[in-house]
Amino acid sequence: MSIIAIDLGGTRIKAGLIKDGQVENLTIKEISTNEGLSDYLPVLHALIADLHLRDQSATGIGIGFPGLVDTDKNTVIDTSGKYNDAPGIDLVGWARDEFGLNLKIENDARLACLGEWKYGAGKGYDNMVMCTLGTGIGSSAIIDGKILRGRHFQAGILGGHSIIEYRASQEVCSCGKYGCVESLASNWAVRKMARQHPLFLTSSLSRGEKIDLASIFEKSEQGDELSVLLRDHCMSVWSVGLVNLIHAYDPEVVVVGGGIMHAKEIVLPYFEEQIKKRVWCPSGVPELRSADYPDSAALLGATQLFE
Amino acid sequence: MSIIAIDLGGTRIKAGLIKDGQVENLTIKEISTNEGLSDYLPVLHALIADLHLRDQSATGIGIGFPGLVDTDKNTVIDTSGKYNDAPGIDLVGWARDEFGLNLKIENDARLACLGEWKYGAGKGYDNMVMCTLGTGIGSSAIIDGKILRGRHFQAGILGGHSIIEYRASQEVCSCGKYGCVESLASNWAVRKMARQHPLFLTSSLSRGEKIDLASIFEKSEQGDELSVLLRDHCMSVWSVGLVNLIHAYDPEVVVVGGGIMHAKEIVLPYFEEQIKKRVWCPSGVPELRSADYPDSAALLGATQLFE
Repeated sequence: MSIIAIDLGGTRIKAGLIKDGQVENLTIKEISTNEGLSDYLPVLHALIADLHLRDQSATGIGIGFPGLVDTDKNTVIDTSGKYNDAPGIDLVGWARDEFGLNLKIENDARLACLGEWKYGAGKGYDNMVMCTLGTGIGSSAIIDGKILRGRHFQAGILGGHSIIEYRASQEVCSCGKYGCVESLASNWAVRKMARQHPLFLTSSLSRGEKIDLASIFEKSEQGDELSVLLRDHCMSVWSVGLVNLIHAYDPEVVVVGGGIMHAKEIVLPYFEEQIKKRVWCPSGVPELRSADYPDSAALLGATQLFE
Repeated sequence: MSIIAIDLGGTRIKAGLIKDGQVENLTIKEISTNEGLSDYLPVLHALIADLHLRDQSATGIGIGFPGLVDTDKNTVIDTSGKYNDAPGIDLVGWARDEFGLNLKIENDARLACLGEWKYGAGKGYDNMVMCTLGTGIGSSAIIDGKILRGRHFQAGILGGHSIIEYRASQEVCSCGKYGCVESLASNWAVRKMARQHPLFLTSSLSRGEKIDLASIFEKSEQGDELSVLLRDHCMSVWSVGLVNLIHAYDPEVVVVGGGIMHAKEIVLPYFEEQIKKRVWCPSGVPELRSADYPDSAALLGATQLFE
């Protein structure tokens, strides 16, 4: 059995055929983030048509979407500023009419979790949390061998919006609220913290092109003191986010993915130490693992929509 | 069918017969909190023997315990400073030998959730969070009509230990960690905040016998300015705790119980406003309800252990 899998990311669209837990014929399209899904339907059409031609036995199309998805109706409920017209688009009807194929759609973090669970770092565990750390934060949980969705398809995926600063704030997160994990270790948060810091003028950050999570990790490696401080701030924020996920879902294993894991030699030991310090787990602290498929877990997970 | 139900609280033990969703022959024993469970076995024996005599058709004994419970083995895994010898006691064998009855045990917050779900404010919902607010905080979640337990029986019950202050702190919570909801709105936290506040000397709190959550709510009613500030601090902390529970479990209804609900006319509207301000729920904010059985939900829930 094979599946045509699409991962609709904020800056790129990935497509491939999934066969026996492998991604074949992977295509990656860089895209602009401020256009609607309808603008990208021709791109999706070309990608799917090509893959369908390569494997006419493909039994369905599985799509990962960066927003809230109704997996009963296979429609988008809400977006986070990406593909904003998606809730009004009938993708199921489109796929049936254009390709005669069954289409299913799910939140991208849940698909990544399913992919790592079936084929990667979460294989063999019945209770798992996955967290993807980058500009945005994705999360998802598997409990007793079942992906958690909840009443309004929100359960598990809001780990980035766990509130870890209870006081009122003017710094608004991408979700429109404040005090969330994502807002406290975001590109704009580190930029603002950097510029207000006494070390800024002597930091290489003041001479760089831009200040964001990537540049802070990069300049930390080069020994810039302020970058190290800001990197540690972010790692501490993310650790607390992971602790809240562990407290909420009681997993055996926590799989961490995302762009941040390029520095996993620094990030993972830091997380392990902080989690041990802050988590309450009388039965033992869950195992922490880096994702096996940082670039293709969501594609691989699409197969699980057809199980 | 009837069940003998026992709720082992921090300051009292409650016992009763549960028949058709009603508590009969309720007995409440005030106890000292620093003794072990073995010291209370004679008390439990007398309570159970009396109830068993009243209804010899009782099919089992259901116990609510204020700590972490293995519901497969019916043993206590970990306590929170109450009945500290409980992990070593074979209650199942004891009940079989003494009464010829099957005994089951569960975390008290989960039983309260099951009680409100089956007979009270959560009736008719398949997705529910319950939170009990008082000196300690209890929480539990029902997802798709099933109580959430997780891999190590911790899932759902750690709402009070969700971290809502990510920074390091010296103020240690009952769980041994810091920054938790419970630690930021605890008796000792409000006591310390009161004494350090500029308004303390002119506040009636400085003339009262003790400063705790109860006295702060009481003196707020009498118009004491500092008490109102501290009460609002606590309500804001609890609101954020509720938001994190909603984000984690995506319920249709949130049932709030505990001593704090004596002031529900003040507490519930405050929670509603704060939750609306801080929660991210594109499909609609869940309903907020006060518990129907603040004193007996855990006893009523014990029946669900035998379903």
